[in-house]
Amino acid sequence: MKIKRKSGESVKIIPLGGLEQIGMNITAFETESDIIVVDCGLSFPDDDMLGIDLVIPDVTYLKENESKVRGFIITHGHEDHIGALPYVLKDINVPIYATKLTTGIIENKLREHDMIDNTTRNVVSYGQTIVLGDFKIEFVKTNHSIADSCALAITTPAGVIFHTGDFKIDYTPVFGDMIDLQRIAEIGKDGVLALLCDSTNVLKPGFTMSERTVGRTFDNIFDDSKESRIIVATFASNVDRVQQIINSAIKYNRKVVIEGRSMINIISTATELGYLDVPDNVIISIEELKNYSDDQIVIITTGSQGESMAALSRMAASIHKKVVIKPGDVVIFSSTPIPGNEKSVSKVINELSHLGANVIIQDTHVSGHACQEEIKLIYALTKPKYAVPVHGEFRHLKAHAKIAREMGVPKENVFVLEPGNVLSLNDEKGSIVGSVVSEGVLVDGLGVGDVGNIVLRDRQLLSENGLIIVVFTLERGSNQVLAGPDIVSRGFVYVREAEDLMEEAREVALNTLDRCFAKGTTEWGRMKVEIRDELGNFIRKKTKRNPMILPIIMEC
Amino acid sequence: MKIKRKSGESVKIIPLGGLEQIGMNITAFETESDIIVVDCGLSFPDDDMLGIDLVIPDVTYLKENESKVRGFIITHGHEDHIGALPYVLKDINVPIYATKLTTGIIENKLREHDMIDNTTRNVVSYGQTIVLGDFKIEFVKTNHSIADSCALAITTPAGVIFHTGDFKIDYTPVFGDMIDLQRIAEIGKDGVLALLCDSTNVLKPGFTMSERTVGRTFDNIFDDSKESRIIVATFASNVDRVQQIINSAIKYNRKVVIEGRSMINIISTATELGYLDVPDNVIISIEELKNYSDDQIVIITTGSQGESMAALSRMAASIHKKVVIKPGDVVIFSSTPIPGNEKSVSKVINELSHLGANVIIQDTHVSGHACQEEIKLIYALTKPKYAVPVHGEFRHLKAHAKIAREMGVPKENVFVLEPGNVLSLNDEKGSIVGSVVSEGVLVDGLGVGDVGNIVLRDRQLLSENGLIIVVFTLERGSNQVLAGPDIVSRGFVYVREAEDLMEEAREVALNTLDRCFAKGTTEWGRMKVEIRDELGNFIRKKTKRNPMILPIIMEC
Repeated sequence: MKIKRKSGESVKIIPLGGLEQIGMNITAFETESDIIVVDCGLSFPDDDMLGIDLVIPDVTYLKENESKVRGFIITHGHEDHIGALPYVLKDINVPIYATKLTTGIIENKLREHDMIDNTTRNVVSYGQTIVLGDFKIEFVKTNHSIADSCALAITTPAGVIFHTGDFKIDYTPVFGDMIDLQRIAEIGKDGVLALLCDSTNVLKPGFTMSERTVGRTFDNIFDDSKESRIIVATFASNVDRVQQIINSAIKYNRKVVIEGRSMINIISTATELGYLDVPDNVIISIEELKNYSDDQIVIITTGSQGESMAALSRMAASIHKKVVIKPGDVVIFSSTPIPGNEKSVSKVINELSHLGANVIIQDTHVSGHACQEEIKLIYALTKPKYAVPVHGEFRHLKAHAKIAREMGVPKENVFVLEPGNVLSLNDEKGSIVGSVVSEGVLVDGLGVGDVGNIVLRDRQLLSENGLIIVVFTLERGSNQVLAGPDIVSRGFVYVREAEDLMEEAREVALNTLDRCFAKGTTEWGRMKVEIRDELGNFIRKKTKRNPMILPIIMEC
Repeated sequence: MKIKRKSGESVKIIPLGGLEQIGMNITAFETESDIIVVDCGLSFPDDDMLGIDLVIPDVTYLKENESKVRGFIITHGHEDHIGALPYVLKDINVPIYATKLTTGIIENKLREHDMIDNTTRNVVSYGQTIVLGDFKIEFVKTNHSIADSCALAITTPAGVIFHTGDFKIDYTPVFGDMIDLQRIAEIGKDGVLALLCDSTNVLKPGFTMSERTVGRTFDNIFDDSKESRIIVATFASNVDRVQQIINSAIKYNRKVVIEGRSMINIISTATELGYLDVPDNVIISIEELKNYSDDQIVIITTGSQGESMAALSRMAASIHKKVVIKPGDVVIFSSTPIPGNEKSVSKVINELSHLGANVIIQDTHVSGHACQEEIKLIYALTKPKYAVPVHGEFRHLKAHAKIAREMGVPKENVFVLEPGNVLSLNDEKGSIVGSVVSEGVLVDGLGVGDVGNIVLRDRQLLSENGLIIVVFTLERGSNQVLAGPDIVSRGFVYVREAEDLMEEAREVALNTLDRCFAKGTTEWGRMKVEIRDELGNFIRKKTKRNPMILPIIMEC
């Protein structure tokens, strides 16, 4: 089927996730009659989102236009591209289209949420094209830090939009082919309306090294560490990395133990689907560890980001039930810290060093994202009319915009979008024509969206200085104080050492109450405000701290 | 005066600060009759020290041996080397010895704490030697990211200990001379018992670039930005950096505005003491900004670490009273994020980019610490019998130990110390002979040490899921419920949306109370435990969250 190119016809591009953070990638493409959505990611909470587990996109706009939504097209299986699916599909249950491994990972996730039976997944191959309403979508082979990643060539009535997804150019990939540069060039030759291109590494000059270079480092380390037990931490989803560790293990006659829930899940999915090549008798269970000497073992584990409950962190903290770190162990971090995780990773490395392990972090990782010269190559091949930098913080998108201009895209055709911006493009011109709701929705335990700014502000206040509760019982009618005021504090000071302060605080509360009664103030709200103010001032003067002051009045 | 070298005599080296974190540098050197203390730094709180302002060293050991303590020798004026002085001097008021600028910065600090009048400061010059009991201390010129830094050659009855302080080797420093390598070689030639050497950059191969290279980058940026206002954020204490910005400003005919409290303080101290060379009429006040066009202005500001209340962060958040960021402004970060600050710095850069500023971060900073080849050079010049790596996290000290061994120090003579370890060294042998108290003391507002683990644990719990208070009034004697139970929550869920849940929680509390009475449980502690358990289970089942449950019983 051919998408009819209608002269003057426009297509809208709407990023629905927060562009601020890496994560929560979800972009709607809309014509008069149809919407398709590329990716559906979640994001991890910022430091100020206390107690929040996840952030998912607000899909109000999709719900309002549910009848137009034709499907989710997923570029690859990372959390920031698939993680919100189980939440969003509850509202907008349309088919999912993705490559084989990506679909396998999504299915694992849906199974965990007990949603496998009432969703539709469609496996698409590289080079295959699907048609959804006004859109024709071709899946194009790319390279990234997870197998089966793809770019999308989306033919719309207004022209072709090329979306790179997360990508790098790897001329010597570990598994499968290199990125299909010939096909990208062909698509470019036929004319590209807009390029949506990965910005993650746009601040880095040059070219990202091939995944294969890491394999060489592994071989060197294995060669240098013939007597030691070797433990390698990496991202569970980096199947090619795991393959290379296994290759080195086989070469140096070691058995492999897989540890950490997400590592076990993804590796079994990847093996089942044929993305990992592991001979029989190489992988052993963690229970079999005791049958082998140190020089016969490699443990591949989660925890490369210093996540507090991951397997490696538990080993480092000496609370792992099966693996006890000992002097001489070689621990390889095959990863770099994601921004914000630097201190947690350092903590784990320090703990491992304390236990005598030899920790190796140099040359054991390459990025999965394109650097400046790779990004330029995509521009050179596609020569888009419009450029819309995607994937990255605002500062990355801005830096990417500069490269787009250097690559010949006219200034007025480069769009750095804010979340929710509605960008309308056609042959003639592009412009931001409106905006839709696009804030993140906070997930805390089972609650989706029930924690908002007030709750977060309270958590912040409580976390900094704790709270002081003032509670007293009044007689109904007479307003006589029958009990209290009692002072209870938590997270403020160690009370045994501050008995005097607490007693003084009680007196301040009592005096304030007396003054209220003397003035004839009987309205509870008013009394609470006065207690909060007086006690707050007293505590601030005495301690230079601002605990939450919470007056509670009972009546009987 | 000559320190008599007594055969078989030992000297003890005791790191009293946490070695875990960069910060809190404080090391005691002890003989039979005397103690000197090198540096007295503070540390900033870890992520899990909620609400804590600072961490200072526990100097119980010094207090117990107060009569032996002869003085504090300070290597340079950074917070992690001087910041705890105002707190520690309250307990152990002995003289301070430091170079001129370092003394000036310490005096600013003592003035803020109203302690200038009852402390003794002694200004020491490079090459000068002071004698304190058993110790003879020579101040040796080094280079670092603050002027007037020094290494110490400490002659003890057991031999000479060479302590580098924080240092780098800068052959072309901006102010003053290069590090006195000749004198260090001479000290080495005469024989060094132990080398205590900076480990901060030990993971980095090669050599740290000269401070002067940053000046060239500034000139290039100024040359490229002739029409724009230029704003440069850097560390207040990096006087040489500020000098270079001023030099570029003069070259390109711009006036300089100094902004941010700590920047203003240090620059005025440095100017007074002759460490900054600023011609008249170059620096203008922020009020005069309006009299100049953008191309005539450079603003030097605090905030290079994304600190939320620093001047640059306020500009980025559009809440700075005097400076409004606008498109075209050039903002230079002349710094790298200290580990843990990466996300805050990114946030500020994103905000500035949103406002249209052109943010420059490349080649605008060099480290103040020695890389691997510089560290090796110090070993080559001093040829110590013992090596004690200092300054850095445990993983840095371990990596440094490896270099010490490579440089010929026998394995058994390299000591990676834990905080509080007492290392005893003499001509014959070195060994850890004991340990002393060395934990950090938490400072929260005016409270020093009144926030401990229980309070921090409560803050953590409160920050993650908030709290639910269950309050009720019982009749004295009869234990009849006169009022309540009432449920009050903070930081848990937005209550308007959870009215049903709160009502159910109230019923759970009431039922639990009824069961208590039915069982004849009247002991308050028991009743509280039962309510906490029952309500906790109920909330966990309903929400998968664990708020703090706080039952309060009143009696009347």
